[in-house]
Amino acid sequence: MHLTTDTLKDLPRGERVNLINSLSGFKSANLVGTRSESGQENLAMVGSCFHIGADPALMGMILRPHSVDRHSLEYLQGSGVYTLNQVHADILEAAHQTAARYPRETSEFTATGLSPAYLPDFSAPFVAQARIKLGMAVREVQTLAVNNTVLVIGAIEHILLPDEVLGDDGLVDIERAGTVALSGLDSYHRSQRIGRLSYAKPDRPAHWLTSDDD
Amino acid sequence: MHLTTDTLKDLPRGERVNLINSLSGFKSANLVGTRSESGQENLAMVGSCFHIGADPALMGMILRPHSVDRHSLEYLQGSGVYTLNQVHADILEAAHQTAARYPRETSEFTATGLSPAYLPDFSAPFVAQARIKLGMAVREVQTLAVNNTVLVIGAIEHILLPDEVLGDDGLVDIERAGTVALSGLDSYHRSQRIGRLSYAKPDRPAHWLTSDDD
Repeated sequence: MHLTTDTLKDLPRGERVNLINSLSGFKSANLVGTRSESGQENLAMVGSCFHIGADPALMGMILRPHSVDRHSLEYLQGSGVYTLNQVHADILEAAHQTAARYPRETSEFTATGLSPAYLPDFSAPFVAQARIKLGMAVREVQTLAVNNTVLVIGAIEHILLPDEVLGDDGLVDIERAGTVALSGLDSYHRSQRIGRLSYAKPDRPAHWLTSDDD
Repeated sequence: MHLTTDTLKDLPRGERVNLINSLSGFKSANLVGTRSESGQENLAMVGSCFHIGADPALMGMILRPHSVDRHSLEYLQGSGVYTLNQVHADILEAAHQTAARYPRETSEFTATGLSPAYLPDFSAPFVAQARIKLGMAVREVQTLAVNNTVLVIGAIEHILLPDEVLGDDGLVDIERAGTVALSGLDSYHRSQRIGRLSYAKPDRPAHWLTSDDD
């Protein structure tokens, strides 16, 4: 099947949104925690977090200022900080439910049964039930001219994770932490590790590494 | 375990790179196909493709101009087009191997055994063995001030996919297409669908939808 810019135009909006959202491949599922200067907490699911660099440790995400993301964007710009909390299978329904368009005065924590948790001297709320959590400092907020979505770049200041998922070589076993992958807008997937491949070099083919849990 | 900006500084570089690359959650795995104006083909694995918008249909990715990504970046800027090819389990070793630092005159297609395929009037090569393939037109190339990586934004002009993976409501069943998820730099995962959750509304909890393949 071959679809082009022209055939896309004729697709009903819902089908188009589902289709295009499927095309990047599997997406990360994270909850963004923010808090306004007046103390209002907000929690929102985002499927667009991506790695930007390891040194400095930077991550990006795309927010939609005219969607339920508007409160997150306002609060993280006000406070300068936010949290990212990897969604795992046991909190999936609650995490998805944060995408509902609640009024500003409703905290998605209260509405979905997730619990806020704080670090000293860091004003954004973490999700207590999450296993891998990041405290982020805003580095750049930029409206993309191509479609007026907003690129938020943050620096990783805090990493909270269970001891047993951190491997000797630094890799975090996010599968063991139950982290889910997202496809499209609403399809969630467990993972099953195929393996790790060795660093690729021109003069010999990459080979499968034995992992700790093999 | 609680790591901070300070403890991160003390980590050996390799561990730090593995750790930080794990923290965004699962990543997409795509092969970027490009071709220089003189006809040199290039193929590179990227783990940073992300959805930007459905209308217009836009996707972003981060390239590292001082890494093996340099040829991809140069060629897509020269030609104005590139392809994205979802990596599936059957081409995983070859896809990973494209990350080796081959000299410019070596095509990663030839080196890894993947085959280039072309559409009329579109100069970038697709990966014949991939199942879900996109023809992209460059919309924006921007160096990010935070770390000098490059954000490439492209518009989806062509979508090639097998009939049987496109659902009635537009969702592409990328699991059925064998698409893999990436974690860290080198850990590859199969997926197992948990299910799809209904559109979240404030007045009722999201519920699991029955999917076609249940």
